[in-house]
Amino acid sequence: MKLADLDTPSLVLDKQRLQANIARIGARAKALGVDLRPHMKTAKCAAVAKLATAGHSGGITVSTLKEAEYFADHGFNDITYALGIAPAKLARAAALRRRGVALSIVTDNIQVAHAISRAPDTSVTGFEVMIDVDTGDGRAGVGIESEDLIAIGKILSDATGVTLRGVLTHMGKSYSCRDIASIVELAEMERAGAVRAAARLRAAGMPCPVVSVGSTPTATHAKNLDGVTEMRPGVFVFQDVFQAEIGSCAMGDIAVSVLATVTGHHPERGEIIIDAGGLALSKDRSTASGPRDVGYGLVVDEACGHSLPEMFVAGVSQEHGIIRAMSGDLPYEHLMPGTRVRVLPNHACFTAAAYDAYRVVDGSAADKSAVVDTWPRVNGW
Amino acid sequence: MKLADLDTPSLVLDKQRLQANIARIGARAKALGVDLRPHMKTAKCAAVAKLATAGHSGGITVSTLKEAEYFADHGFNDITYALGIAPAKLARAAALRRRGVALSIVTDNIQVAHAISRAPDTSVTGFEVMIDVDTGDGRAGVGIESEDLIAIGKILSDATGVTLRGVLTHMGKSYSCRDIASIVELAEMERAGAVRAAARLRAAGMPCPVVSVGSTPTATHAKNLDGVTEMRPGVFVFQDVFQAEIGSCAMGDIAVSVLATVTGHHPERGEIIIDAGGLALSKDRSTASGPRDVGYGLVVDEACGHSLPEMFVAGVSQEHGIIRAMSGDLPYEHLMPGTRVRVLPNHACFTAAAYDAYRVVDGSAADKSAVVDTWPRVNGW
Repeated sequence: MKLADLDTPSLVLDKQRLQANIARIGARAKALGVDLRPHMKTAKCAAVAKLATAGHSGGITVSTLKEAEYFADHGFNDITYALGIAPAKLARAAALRRRGVALSIVTDNIQVAHAISRAPDTSVTGFEVMIDVDTGDGRAGVGIESEDLIAIGKILSDATGVTLRGVLTHMGKSYSCRDIASIVELAEMERAGAVRAAARLRAAGMPCPVVSVGSTPTATHAKNLDGVTEMRPGVFVFQDVFQAEIGSCAMGDIAVSVLATVTGHHPERGEIIIDAGGLALSKDRSTASGPRDVGYGLVVDEACGHSLPEMFVAGVSQEHGIIRAMSGDLPYEHLMPGTRVRVLPNHACFTAAAYDAYRVVDGSAADKSAVVDTWPRVNGW
Repeated sequence: MKLADLDTPSLVLDKQRLQANIARIGARAKALGVDLRPHMKTAKCAAVAKLATAGHSGGITVSTLKEAEYFADHGFNDITYALGIAPAKLARAAALRRRGVALSIVTDNIQVAHAISRAPDTSVTGFEVMIDVDTGDGRAGVGIESEDLIAIGKILSDATGVTLRGVLTHMGKSYSCRDIASIVELAEMERAGAVRAAARLRAAGMPCPVVSVGSTPTATHAKNLDGVTEMRPGVFVFQDVFQAEIGSCAMGDIAVSVLATVTGHHPERGEIIIDAGGLALSKDRSTASGPRDVGYGLVVDEACGHSLPEMFVAGVSQEHGIIRAMSGDLPYEHLMPGTRVRVLPNHACFTAAAYDAYRVVDGSAADKSAVVDTWPRVNGW
């Protein structure tokens, strides 16, 4: 099968770029002396997880219990479910523990810690729990200097059949950085905060073997991760336009794109219509607040090269995408109806979520337009 | 099964509200003397399509060929695929025609019209084609006074085995109206433009039996549809916060919502965390440009009533939603971790697309928390 045989929109994954992205972050983890526990919320795909864990401990991170179940079905048995757990999900988590999966769960809340400690299945299943700590991100997590950190630690470490595994943090604020120096600073804040939280738990007589940090920008630029034991970046496997804009990668590293077809021309408005709209690209607008706003994605030629003038998806409705030129005129004569283009996504995690599978091409192969594999992904909850 | 038994996030559909929404637009179509050809891009669900077509001709509109195939599998055989067709999709469309489905396809482009007229299967399958006309929306569609309209009409009506069925328009601009009077005006522009395009085709000696208009706001507020033969609203079946804000419905008409669970409290920031983030709610921000910005959705109590102070989802990451109060304090004591809430979506078409199925409740039943049915939906392409 060739790219030309795919219906559009389709989600295309370049294996060569994927492997290079994985190798680069894998080498960073080794150099920084930490384990790589890749966050599979981006790829949600066992084939990608196998590549991303090779040469590391084999542990992964997930964002839903459905992912945890899927990856357990595919042989992964060291899984951190990194979202603060809702008490009603403890039974589903316990079922995974009973299957022999070393599933760690997470909370930042005293009431939930009590619920975990009282869960009827704990003696059988032995919940392992991480405390989510806020190192400056301001989304979830307990304050690193808070009384709650120690209180949650005590509840968990005192409970029968519960193991306090450590602390976990995510510096999502790194996404709002506009220069590498700021990312380096936040990476250090993330590291120092997580290490400080771990030290407080240890000083209060509790164990804290795992100190886990996250985010692709901080994983890319951290100067050192002293005291940290693992990193959990996610989007690095695919990268995207937003990551390229903030310096996590080059535009040529982006491994996923949406294959789309031109369906109409509106030269009177300077617009070309494609059959990839808000569902096919997602409505993520990360780049709106970034160094350069590329609407709903950057448009390149079918070969995913840059033979055409710079274009972006300026607007979407559900299935229509409206392409405009970054400057000057659109190359109408090279984009006649029926011509295919590739759209590099603003945010790979969101764009990929609209698809059941990746159509895999290999940029290192003799025939770069051959679809060498189809890799399913898991969606939903 | 009860709502309490559902894992979160789940997509809940209230059958009573759905039926009332369908009855209201159905009555409008009757009163205006046009057929209702509901756009199933919102619901993508055969059970909803059955309710929405009852008492009308039975025709439906779809936004993807996958929807067309799904609805054909469920007994719908009069389907308009309302997106300008990409030439490579003609074979898949022809396959539906060969199955006996009265599938109409759409274009606004001369090159595509040529491709349709030259398609090898036309003599067997007899493509029926609608011309997309732009009545002021500025997305897709050929100008109503353009030479291209007549040229496309001629190409299609001269081609062997192709039937020119009529004109189709969509006044998406009605979404940017902020008062009913403006919607009434746009509805008239949509009607008059479509009728004018049909008149031009007829004056040039071509048939134009179908004059098709769209959009929920214009279907709701059009004063008359003289000369129009059918309407294709879509989101009316579910409605959403954006439609309520622009006057297409009341907030109490919204039939779909996302069931979510509180997982954490951050009173120092005035925030509560739920387990429904950007994937569960979509990143649609329609209300940002509306009369009232409700972030990523309006938060109500688990019963989908309004017993709590007004709250909204102020921020999302992939699986986290951050709730803030519209004014004053959040009711932390009523929203302890583990408590469930419902999020009314900004844009139902996008929110629903993250789910494989609707969990159906019935607001008219004695037990409003009983899940009376699960209706699958079709996603992807």
